[in-house]
Amino acid sequence: MSIETTATIASFGGKLLKLKHKSSNTNTDMAFNLYLPPQALKSDAKVPVLFFLSGLTCTGDNCSEKGFFQHGASEKGIAVVYPDTSPRGLQIEGEDDAYDFGSGAGFYVDATKEPWTKGYNMYSYITKELPDALFAGFKELDSSRVSITGHSMGGHGALTLFLKNPGKYKSVSAFAPIANPINCAWGQKAFKGYFGEDQQEKWKQHDATELVKQWKGPLDMLIDVGTGDNFYKQGQLLPENFIKAAKEAGNDKGINLRMQPDYDHSYYFMSSFADEHVAYAAKHLGV
Amino acid sequence: MSIETTATIASFGGKLLKLKHKSSNTNTDMAFNLYLPPQALKSDAKVPVLFFLSGLTCTGDNCSEKGFFQHGASEKGIAVVYPDTSPRGLQIEGEDDAYDFGSGAGFYVDATKEPWTKGYNMYSYITKELPDALFAGFKELDSSRVSITGHSMGGHGALTLFLKNPGKYKSVSAFAPIANPINCAWGQKAFKGYFGEDQQEKWKQHDATELVKQWKGPLDMLIDVGTGDNFYKQGQLLPENFIKAAKEAGNDKGINLRMQPDYDHSYYFMSSFADEHVAYAAKHLGV
Repeated sequence: MSIETTATIASFGGKLLKLKHKSSNTNTDMAFNLYLPPQALKSDAKVPVLFFLSGLTCTGDNCSEKGFFQHGASEKGIAVVYPDTSPRGLQIEGEDDAYDFGSGAGFYVDATKEPWTKGYNMYSYITKELPDALFAGFKELDSSRVSITGHSMGGHGALTLFLKNPGKYKSVSAFAPIANPINCAWGQKAFKGYFGEDQQEKWKQHDATELVKQWKGPLDMLIDVGTGDNFYKQGQLLPENFIKAAKEAGNDKGINLRMQPDYDHSYYFMSSFADEHVAYAAKHLGV
Repeated sequence: MSIETTATIASFGGKLLKLKHKSSNTNTDMAFNLYLPPQALKSDAKVPVLFFLSGLTCTGDNCSEKGFFQHGASEKGIAVVYPDTSPRGLQIEGEDDAYDFGSGAGFYVDATKEPWTKGYNMYSYITKELPDALFAGFKELDSSRVSITGHSMGGHGALTLFLKNPGKYKSVSAFAPIANPINCAWGQKAFKGYFGEDQQEKWKQHDATELVKQWKGPLDMLIDVGTGDNFYKQGQLLPENFIKAAKEAGNDKGINLRMQPDYDHSYYFMSSFADEHVAYAAKHLGV
């Protein structure tokens, strides 16, 4: 489907495009943002791409405004894609009732439980439909060099999409990821809703801590979590479970989990380390 | 009056403090934010200070979240103060009726017209009461090294406060300033409301284009304006008038007005050049 540009905004020497297209995965229009760095504006440009997956309640706008990925992306010459976090306006009963389920909370899975099957297919949308549309529509993007990162629910998305698709992404990093959703309240609510309570195998297929156990070969990751993050303190993130599982599987050597003193769960935290996550992706993207 | 800390947020290795205090200038509580860079957290620290004056509708929070000043301030070791843009909740009839007058639109002047004299004294608040409270409360701030910058209405504030107080600020810069308020709709509405229609001399005392004509000695300034800024196109900013007046007075040599191609009036514009404005202040602050 073709992509419509709704706004073009100058940012750090490049352009932030506000875009929308019809999605057959979600059965809705989907809005998203694309940052084209200055290097992408030359006629024969081919720049690598970093997907940023946002957290609960967010759209692609939050990180575009407050995450400061554009700063590093402009320097390194990386395009950044900021997708939305769910379909919106499907008219499913209850879709707007909670901040942590339904609208703004797609959890980067394909729902198998009615009525959410109607369009809550963010896994397919992010891994297939959106990149296909992007690479068809923007010849300046290099489909062979793609990395992924994300925050909170989007950190869960980044880790699981990376682990489920070996070779698809050149690198993964995460900010305060929900690293073991089957063992925290947010994840249990989402997976119960989108898959059903009795679908434990399905749950495990979207849990980074379960997936890391099966990873073959070397593993390289950058993960930041703030020690002042209330959701970390409440046991919603569980990065230690992820590290423990990786260690037991012999896959922990390349995982750099940094506990950042005093940082919270907000974009103040994200923006403070955005440059480093972009630099980490850049290294793997060959720029 | 003592300052109360309502939140402490880790940001770029330093701390963003959300603060409030009672102001006798505004007759209200005033909220503001203070960014302490990592260099300020050492026991015997003494860091210079950059005041950032916000534009219409904003509080100190907008730029703290979206302006990206903390990035450069952290590197250079400069504290940043983000004040509010007006008193709030004075119960003056009509104070919340317009985005460009009353609440969120104090214009950095001391009102002389009733009923705004009740507390619309942002000039005195920003130049005297707030710095006095800050330097009394935070010994890590160096009162002898202070610079000022701002955006839109706050750019007007930065320019006029600098020009009206020779020596008080080590440097001034501005983003999309309202550079000649007596000749634009925003400024005329504000000055009519706060001073009265017949107070032309008073109007001129708060107009950067008028003030620059009287400046004695060398003048050094950095001003960025986006060519895609709708308010620039509508004649609300008038930077050319400012440059023309400075030139006629022989004061234009050190004014670096940069017309930034395609940039708009938003924080996307601001954040793109925040590092450069912090570096500009740093040079004058001796860091």
